[in-house]
Amino acid sequence: MSGQEQEFDVVVLGAGSTGENVADVVVRGGLSAALVEAELVGGECSYWACMPSKALLRGTEVLTAARAVDGARQAVTGEQDVAATLARRDSFTHGWDDSSQAEWVDGAGIALLRGTGRLDGERTVVVTGTGGTTTRLTARHAVAVCTGSEAAVPPIEGLPGIDPWTPRDATSAKEAPGRLLVVGGGYVGCEMATAWQALGARVTLVQRGDRLLEEMEPEAGDAVAAALRDRGVDVRLRTDVLAARRDGGEVVLQCTGGELRGDEVLVAVGRQARTADAGLGTVGLTPGEYLDVDDSLQVRGLPWLYGVGDVNGRRQLTHMGKYQARQAGAAIVARARGEQVSTADWSPTAATADRRATPSVVFTEPQVASVGLTRARAAKAGVPHRVVVYPIGSVAGASLHADGYTGTAVAVVDAEREVLLGVTFVGPGVAELLHAATVAVVGEVPIARLWHAVPAYPTMSEIWLRLLETYRG
Amino acid sequence: MSGQEQEFDVVVLGAGSTGENVADVVVRGGLSAALVEAELVGGECSYWACMPSKALLRGTEVLTAARAVDGARQAVTGEQDVAATLARRDSFTHGWDDSSQAEWVDGAGIALLRGTGRLDGERTVVVTGTGGTTTRLTARHAVAVCTGSEAAVPPIEGLPGIDPWTPRDATSAKEAPGRLLVVGGGYVGCEMATAWQALGARVTLVQRGDRLLEEMEPEAGDAVAAALRDRGVDVRLRTDVLAARRDGGEVVLQCTGGELRGDEVLVAVGRQARTADAGLGTVGLTPGEYLDVDDSLQVRGLPWLYGVGDVNGRRQLTHMGKYQARQAGAAIVARARGEQVSTADWSPTAATADRRATPSVVFTEPQVASVGLTRARAAKAGVPHRVVVYPIGSVAGASLHADGYTGTAVAVVDAEREVLLGVTFVGPGVAELLHAATVAVVGEVPIARLWHAVPAYPTMSEIWLRLLETYRG
Repeated sequence: MSGQEQEFDVVVLGAGSTGENVADVVVRGGLSAALVEAELVGGECSYWACMPSKALLRGTEVLTAARAVDGARQAVTGEQDVAATLARRDSFTHGWDDSSQAEWVDGAGIALLRGTGRLDGERTVVVTGTGGTTTRLTARHAVAVCTGSEAAVPPIEGLPGIDPWTPRDATSAKEAPGRLLVVGGGYVGCEMATAWQALGARVTLVQRGDRLLEEMEPEAGDAVAAALRDRGVDVRLRTDVLAARRDGGEVVLQCTGGELRGDEVLVAVGRQARTADAGLGTVGLTPGEYLDVDDSLQVRGLPWLYGVGDVNGRRQLTHMGKYQARQAGAAIVARARGEQVSTADWSPTAATADRRATPSVVFTEPQVASVGLTRARAAKAGVPHRVVVYPIGSVAGASLHADGYTGTAVAVVDAEREVLLGVTFVGPGVAELLHAATVAVVGEVPIARLWHAVPAYPTMSEIWLRLLETYRG
Repeated sequence: MSGQEQEFDVVVLGAGSTGENVADVVVRGGLSAALVEAELVGGECSYWACMPSKALLRGTEVLTAARAVDGARQAVTGEQDVAATLARRDSFTHGWDDSSQAEWVDGAGIALLRGTGRLDGERTVVVTGTGGTTTRLTARHAVAVCTGSEAAVPPIEGLPGIDPWTPRDATSAKEAPGRLLVVGGGYVGCEMATAWQALGARVTLVQRGDRLLEEMEPEAGDAVAAALRDRGVDVRLRTDVLAARRDGGEVVLQCTGGELRGDEVLVAVGRQARTADAGLGTVGLTPGEYLDVDDSLQVRGLPWLYGVGDVNGRRQLTHMGKYQARQAGAAIVARARGEQVSTADWSPTAATADRRATPSVVFTEPQVASVGLTRARAAKAGVPHRVVVYPIGSVAGASLHADGYTGTAVAVVDAEREVLLGVTFVGPGVAELLHAATVAVVGEVPIARLWHAVPAYPTMSEIWLRLLETYRG
């Protein structure tokens, strides 16, 4: 069926938060933009990831905080209301209805095309709508692929046949399963184990490696494993899943070390690029692979093509996708104007923070907030560095925050330049402590100057003073 | 009575957190130090200010947070336990016993002298112990006066005769008064009104000026006044107290606008230097006045004398006293070694942050966290600047934090240098957001670089992205 033809300055594939931001930036820069989406406008983060997962976790966080303060604890005599918690989660996903986001797109002057977009040669995208109608889009300046990522399915015998929960199912479930098996000890596995255990499930968390949250400082995974166990989660490290099957209503996982049975199984062992059905073959790229991009998010060898967000495999986090969108959008606008684009560190058209200062927060109890290099990554990169570790519970603000507060701060300092390379905070309520570290790392603020950045007493931020004192020795 | 004579490199008057830190820094720098204290080692902050006040407020904070999250709210079916809250407060003040702090002083190699210390001419201090014994101390290098401040008593007819609560009484009270009158709408008045209303008192807050927290951005006082009223506090602005008396067990305040009756009255209208009995007259200074110091905290005209902490009137906050102690201590050590001392901005021997980046947190509900210049101070200083205001409740992380989250962020940007001059956050749970602003102001991180400091999604710190977007326009 031959369809319509339309021309735009920029065509964006995928209307998740990354695609929305690329389109918004280029439209603000005076270009026209089409945004193509087959599912919900707003994407993974709004409907199946950040927002619903944090909505599931917030109630547990505040009740844990209240129970940790003598005097307040006595007021918490009831139980968390699971139905109300799930209803609150649904309010954040707008019941999985994207009309408010579609309205925003329209108001921003972006053309929204519903359907599956596929590249069809240079600067061309064909959109197939639900009824089979096709629209051929030509991009004068650039095509940005922002199709994101999806849960990877590990090669475990029998797994595809038993319809396991993906992270999407875990964040959108309508009730707590009786027994939930979680395969994968990364941040999704840890957060969902925390959430569903608190909401009534008996959770078993299976992790192949030696510890949870393996990419982070070891203090993080150790603390989260201990806390999950305290809350009744059966945490099994160094455990492989060999096969999966259903036995009546039960899910059965055959693992090294024995058999596990549950009512549902969540598989959260990583992500893969959503590029299998994006027409990559028509421009000489390999379907299913991550897009290889430079710091302006331009695909190497194809100057009209950008890969922004999860799809390039650089940093798979909503805020980094939006950041890349701002940098890529600025690069697209500049190049459309015939301007030179710098990919030098910290240029307005380079996603330097992807390499130097990516923040992330794991909303477990305790929380894990980190930015920049861990000690392991600094060592691997061969950067001369010093590691400073301090127990957050020794800070007055933390002892006020919670009785018996336990937590750890780890700072990695460039030993030659005397600037911070990375910081990790592990402990209750540390999420908002992180941005100070991000500003310090990004701003390359010298340690000597940081001594003048006085933390207000008695906040938990006083950990900064202790880290500086410990570094000085 | 003639007494003992002793010589030290440095003599420190006052063993509050400021004095302790001066002594600690100079001892670490290889000098000997005597620390003179007539009351409790640890001082105001540990026993009558920061620690007990925040301990009184924390239970209310966590319960307010839990009640603001649907699903968690249903678990909070009881009331805050007032006796347990007061007992928790007592645990932070160690029952007003300073033996653990005295032990720390001893372990740090500092000589502690119990008694009242008074200057007695150049580099000389006479300590009068409780039994009337005297010790004459000679300081080879420096005397640091760290005697702090005390509550100012306003000239209100009848007030001295009715034995009003000072801030010390408000933080150390053994039970909630039935009706508490609070005179003064600064941070002490606002915090104590919040605490005691939550702990069962019916509070009336009387403020002379047009709004509460007058030194801060107007958004702060307006939000705190509205919240106090929501909680049942009778907030009276533009109200002068003309006279005070007791009528039976009642306190009666005659105010513009009528009479107020209560069971106790807290007077919190500011501070005055504790220098009336410090022997200032023996070195040509005026007793009762603040010490006039330069950025190394050296008293002008008396190179051997330092005034550190509240006593110099620069910034009356525990953390700034400790900061000044570090800078003054470093200056004393350097000068003792015959080294030149720089008072240039951000030098290790200059308390530059006093002028440029003083952080403070008011632990009311909502909290007020601010650093650097307000818009009013920037205007007064004649700095070309732009003001950026954004509602924190529009940030995803805030909407997750509390249902119906209300708050405001105000940033003051140097319009020429494009760096932050000051930031204020008003809202629930903003205390830990502040340090990022402090690092940005102190580090003079350019706005262009701050765009690379990506806030983790979905934290409240995403307010940073909104402030940057709003600034860009």
